Amino acid sequence: MKKNVLIIGAGGVAQVVAHKCAQHNDILGDLHIASRRKAKCDAIIASVGEKQAMKVPGTFDSHALDATDVAATAALIRETGAGIVINVGSAFVNKYVLDACIETGVAYIDTAIHEEPNKICEAPPWYGNYEWKKRDLCAEKGVTAILGAGFDPGVVNAYVRFAADEYLDTVTAIDIVDINAGSHGRYFATNFDPEINFREFTGTVYSWQGGKWQENAMFEVGQEWDLPVVGKQKAYLSGHDEVHSLSANYPAADVRFWMGFGDHYINVFTVLKTLGLLSEQPVTTAEGLEVVPLKVVKAVLPDPASLAPDYTGKTCIGDFVKGMKDGREVEVFVYNVADHKEAYEEVGAQGISYTAGVPAVAAALMVAEGTWDVARMANVEELPARPFLELLGKIGLPSRVITPGGEDIAI
Amino acid sequence: MKKNVLIIGAGGVAQVVAHKCAQHNDILGDLHIASRRKAKCDAIIASVGEKQAMKVPGTFDSHALDATDVAATAALIRETGAGIVINVGSAFVNKYVLDACIETGVAYIDTAIHEEPNKICEAPPWYGNYEWKKRDLCAEKGVTAILGAGFDPGVVNAYVRFAADEYLDTVTAIDIVDINAGSHGRYFATNFDPEINFREFTGTVYSWQGGKWQENAMFEVGQEWDLPVVGKQKAYLSGHDEVHSLSANYPAADVRFWMGFGDHYINVFTVLKTLGLLSEQPVTTAEGLEVVPLKVVKAVLPDPASLAPDYTGKTCIGDFVKGMKDGREVEVFVYNVADHKEAYEEVGAQGISYTAGVPAVAAALMVAEGTWDVARMANVEELPARPFLELLGKIGLPSRVITPGGEDIAI
Repeated sequence: MKKNVLIIGAGGVAQVVAHKCAQHNDILGDLHIASRRKAKCDAIIASVGEKQAMKVPGTFDSHALDATDVAATAALIRETGAGIVINVGSAFVNKYVLDACIETGVAYIDTAIHEEPNKICEAPPWYGNYEWKKRDLCAEKGVTAILGAGFDPGVVNAYVRFAADEYLDTVTAIDIVDINAGSHGRYFATNFDPEINFREFTGTVYSWQGGKWQENAMFEVGQEWDLPVVGKQKAYLSGHDEVHSLSANYPAADVRFWMGFGDHYINVFTVLKTLGLLSEQPVTTAEGLEVVPLKVVKAVLPDPASLAPDYTGKTCIGDFVKGMKDGREVEVFVYNVADHKEAYEEVGAQGISYTAGVPAVAAALMVAEGTWDVARMANVEELPARPFLELLGKIGLPSRVITPGGEDIAI
Repeated sequence: MKKNVLIIGAGGVAQVVAHKCAQHNDILGDLHIASRRKAKCDAIIASVGEKQAMKVPGTFDSHALDATDVAATAALIRETGAGIVINVGSAFVNKYVLDACIETGVAYIDTAIHEEPNKICEAPPWYGNYEWKKRDLCAEKGVTAILGAGFDPGVVNAYVRFAADEYLDTVTAIDIVDINAGSHGRYFATNFDPEINFREFTGTVYSWQGGKWQENAMFEVGQEWDLPVVGKQKAYLSGHDEVHSLSANYPAADVRFWMGFGDHYINVFTVLKTLGLLSEQPVTTAEGLEVVPLKVVKAVLPDPASLAPDYTGKTCIGDFVKGMKDGREVEVFVYNVADHKEAYEEVGAQGISYTAGVPAVAAALMVAEGTWDVARMANVEELPARPFLELLGKIGLPSRVITPGGEDIAI
């Protein structure tokens, strides 16, 4: 039984995590939130107060922290008595926060793979570059580290495990489809940190097919998918974190990730990328100022958190999982539909932040209650899926499955 | 009789000016070129050497200069013994260079209106904001200052005067059309300094119609024009320097400037502008770095000078001038067609730089020989047009006129 949670980060996903932790502070205990700018943490705590989200009276404190400073993070973990760290800061801080958790022996949960600011699309599998190097150390020290416990990666990994556990003897193909059919009403915006968001699409698209890595360019391979609620949607083969663990855990299956994009998004993205404005490498202005173009694009784009009040429509994220069952090839589709407006009304964030944040809190609850407190490093598909999905359904993200027989049922 | 020329600036237009001055150094005397980065001046002088452009043996020296430092510019004018300054530096330095010329009593020639870095589209007429405030001082001190002596502004102003002098009793409409039908083969590039180039299209479009300023948005008003050599081309009502002097000198005429743009250019421009990336106002990155987005866009775009070797095709810039002649309404079209490749072969620059630079040297020759050494400030349409256009024809930019009778004849 672990308790007391330290949330790292103060963006849109942290907002969701804070609200959801507050709604379950009877189990999670004291709550703390830390980021470089303490004022952002205070704003989140104030919003938790406004919504009266704390289930029982308790602590929710803010802290200023440079999360790349391992010693400072370890000190804060000790000072707060946190037993679980939910890291939803920038992907640039992940490896440092993980180190601090290993050092202090507390549970670590994140929602994305570590990234180095000046590197994009390192050699696959991406988890091998930073996280998995600490796998033996976690096992040795008995540290629980749940990697990629957002929606994608995260819930979509659990969907594969769920399909494999309940419907398939072997898995032959995993197609994860992420459609945001919502509208923020702006000319152009990203749904989370533009710096991280664009990096997903500026490098090589890695997919796992035929037992090896296949490389494509972004927007090179597109396909229309017919999904529940959101209907027919065009999505493009994209690089994504979960492909890098699912391919290791299901090496005999093809593993592909498909992200939906409208023509307008693709046009704006193509202009920015082709001009070099999405580059993470610094350029020098005529006046001699060294600046990373992507950081300037981030500065002029809307703050993703600011989109929430006007966001309407729904998301549909799900996995088409194919495999063999009793000698026959079958397919299931496991999915969630979330609503931007409902998310905003509940936790003051849009649907993309909601789907990323709620699973991290579900993971924390699973760790707190012991089911997922595995004393080692694990990706989500390596952990029991049904209890996680059932818990998620109770706390705001219900999943459904279209069975091999074509029935569409709640999990 | 004035001689010895100091060129300020070291971009593509300065490259053309340097070559053309060298080709006429028997008249112009000693040549000097100064810019912030002396190495760029040295490269230009080296290219003059390679082309053996100097007509007679003579001086061509380079200097480092911050042209916003009036005292430093005045000192360099005195040190070099320059009688004529051809200012083809950034439009941001113009008022300072003009002050230095007034202080030292030498002739001043530029090709654009002064601009302040943090202001766009000030109140019309733009010449009234900086240059014309020094008109009385120039007259009092007998200083010749020729404003806007490039192609547009410059030659297109002379075209109006030429049409008025030789074909019309009164002028009722001036439509200046600037078409670059050439191709640089890049995804996207500007033909001169992106910072100045984009500023032309990010603010209000001012035109002079019905005796008053009319305001439009960029790309709001488009029209197809059928031009010699380049054929049918779509051009858009745009703001431009020459509208601001021609409207003062021909207040009874409508004065409009039309710039040709392809759909791809408009798309890229629209994306950048709508996102705020063409803004001249600083933004602050998440890391706290203050940076002007437009300067970053400039840093990632191709250096306009680098386009020259691969540039093919032609430009056509001309004036449709309407008016009354002997009680009848008539129209003439006065124009030039230039070729990118020929420009590169002659002076190592593309056609846009060529058309901007050659007229400034023609103006310098007209000042040196006395015809334009008017001991006051003047816009080009206030000076004799035919000798200027004839000289231009001899030194590389021949003009033609389509007469009211429909004849297409050389000037």
